[in-house]
Amino acid sequence: MRPAFEVFSSDGAARLGRLTLAHGVVETPAFMPVGTYGTVKAMTPEELTNLGAQIVLGNTFHLMLRPGTQVIDAHGGLHRFMHWPHPILTDSGGFQVFSLKSLRRITEEGVRFRSPIDGSEVRLTPEDSMAVQLSLRSDIAMALDDCTPYPATEQQARESMERSMRWAARSHEYYHRQEPPGGLFGIVQGGMYAHLRLASLESLSERDWPGLAIGGLAVGEPEEERLRILEALTRRLPPDRPRYLMGVGRPEEIVAAVLRGVDMFDCVMPTRHARNGHLFTSTGVINIRNSAHQTDLGPVDPGCACYTCRHYTRAYLRHLDRCNEILGSRLNTVHNLYFYLQLMRTLREAIAAGRLTSWAQGYLAGRRAAADAVA
Amino acid sequence: MRPAFEVFSSDGAARLGRLTLAHGVVETPAFMPVGTYGTVKAMTPEELTNLGAQIVLGNTFHLMLRPGTQVIDAHGGLHRFMHWPHPILTDSGGFQVFSLKSLRRITEEGVRFRSPIDGSEVRLTPEDSMAVQLSLRSDIAMALDDCTPYPATEQQARESMERSMRWAARSHEYYHRQEPPGGLFGIVQGGMYAHLRLASLESLSERDWPGLAIGGLAVGEPEEERLRILEALTRRLPPDRPRYLMGVGRPEEIVAAVLRGVDMFDCVMPTRHARNGHLFTSTGVINIRNSAHQTDLGPVDPGCACYTCRHYTRAYLRHLDRCNEILGSRLNTVHNLYFYLQLMRTLREAIAAGRLTSWAQGYLAGRRAAADAVA
Repeated sequence: MRPAFEVFSSDGAARLGRLTLAHGVVETPAFMPVGTYGTVKAMTPEELTNLGAQIVLGNTFHLMLRPGTQVIDAHGGLHRFMHWPHPILTDSGGFQVFSLKSLRRITEEGVRFRSPIDGSEVRLTPEDSMAVQLSLRSDIAMALDDCTPYPATEQQARESMERSMRWAARSHEYYHRQEPPGGLFGIVQGGMYAHLRLASLESLSERDWPGLAIGGLAVGEPEEERLRILEALTRRLPPDRPRYLMGVGRPEEIVAAVLRGVDMFDCVMPTRHARNGHLFTSTGVINIRNSAHQTDLGPVDPGCACYTCRHYTRAYLRHLDRCNEILGSRLNTVHNLYFYLQLMRTLREAIAAGRLTSWAQGYLAGRRAAADAVA
Repeated sequence: MRPAFEVFSSDGAARLGRLTLAHGVVETPAFMPVGTYGTVKAMTPEELTNLGAQIVLGNTFHLMLRPGTQVIDAHGGLHRFMHWPHPILTDSGGFQVFSLKSLRRITEEGVRFRSPIDGSEVRLTPEDSMAVQLSLRSDIAMALDDCTPYPATEQQARESMERSMRWAARSHEYYHRQEPPGGLFGIVQGGMYAHLRLASLESLSERDWPGLAIGGLAVGEPEEERLRILEALTRRLPPDRPRYLMGVGRPEEIVAAVLRGVDMFDCVMPTRHARNGHLFTSTGVINIRNSAHQTDLGPVDPGCACYTCRHYTRAYLRHLDRCNEILGSRLNTVHNLYFYLQLMRTLREAIAAGRLTSWAQGYLAGRRAAADAVA
């Protein structure tokens, strides 16, 4: 089913929307927890639903290597494999391949790399990526792109972007050869060069995409650079299509991007941080491993209503972390995902009430103060 | 509150009972999942309750080292520390200390050992064990005993048993100096010598215990030895007190012991096996890591109604295991604990219906056939 997007309220550049997909509805702005190997680490699908997740992200690169598409195909797709009946977005696999650096070789055809699992040579062309994503039966698939590194010269960024555009065209053609199970999003590239970004958008507009993503940000660039590119782009992105900022990010980065009209986000930060004992709170990130929490009978965040904060002390969580207990990773993940998903609810409410700008000013000032205090 | 035990039905030597403790009622025969560090590994308390656990076991040895009694005391005891509102039995710490072997030194006073956490010297006397268990506020505490190794000469077994009896007396005296939060169980020792076992029971009968445990079994002895000792003892144990066979065991061992009149069990097997990918089924144990399960779209056990079997395939569980995913440990643990707790429900129903002997014959024959098939 082709994704349908409806914007029914806006506040400045920010939009309140509803994305209707094959497996359900996603309210935007939305955060997508990352389920790399067909599981959002440490969580059951029911827990994710209770936390307020409406869509999760699956990683094409990881799933094609383990367990392989054949196994998932035999289950009838990723939803049934992982017992998640709600929407799934799959990435193209490109970002992970480009992260391999020394193990990969890029040509016009696509990219070849050595599997980090067993060392065998693996090929990933736009057609390969589409074939895998089609067999995963994701609600939203992503075109294969060449993710421009940071920093890059203008020529590097242009060549990379133009390759991405040719791959996007091939992705689009392959994906639509038969009735697809979902919709394909295009990805704008162009590095930190606004004119290349707009050229990329222009190129993509030759085809019909039910949504567009902004790739190649959150790759190490300064915040000003990111916001400059974001502002240049969001002014020109079609207003009736969802906008997905890939791989972003920290809570304050999400707020900044929503203010500029972005609708969808994904990031491993809440889940990865949780397993490392880093917990988000309204006054900054705490490290539960810190000995200061050894006898702390308070919750992670007194203002938080999550399962973890309602029932467990910082001292208990620190103890679980020290003992490498699985329950520690679970309770930390519950807390961090709740924090992110609660942030998205708050953003949606603020947009609906037309008070996003003032809310965000207070929020961002608070985060800066918290960051200063921690530093 | 002193434990109160009521036997309201029996079938041969087997008994159906109800143990009323400070934090709730336990139906017997009962299996106690092991919560070493204040968590039954990978499970939340709510999940344990849903699986049918009515009591869990806490390890004094581990908890006194991490996080230490001070932290748990500050929470008001182990129940509140770990958010488990139902009954808890704590062991004495003795078994773990004796497992250290080279790190320990036993005297009449008690035992001294090097902490495996930080190498410091730690003392555990009967009084120390009671002080820790009192601060944990367990519903059932265990007397400190000297666990006789297997094999042992008669003299070794006698000396060890007699030391256990002196320590039991000191444990009893210390535990009852003030109004205790629960009740103290004595432990029968004596190795594989029936006359020493009866002498131990005779010695314990000089004091009042709300329950008695059989220690020093499941230490590597042949099944015939264990059953011989068990039968000699259960004929003489006071019929109005619960009988706890420590550290046992495999499903067929539990059935054999229930047939002989045992009421309570604990074992790490279901939870530890789960994390190693060994899953209990009605036709034997399967290893989910086996490549035979790679494309198996069936559940772990078609006859099982647990959450894992209702929603996930063997292929998915194998994939999670290969990727070291936390959810794999969780789903496997849910299945194995359900298997054990379902076995206890079945045993209680069979006793109530007066058909335990015939049910057990069929069950044990089936397990032997399954074991032969696996071998």
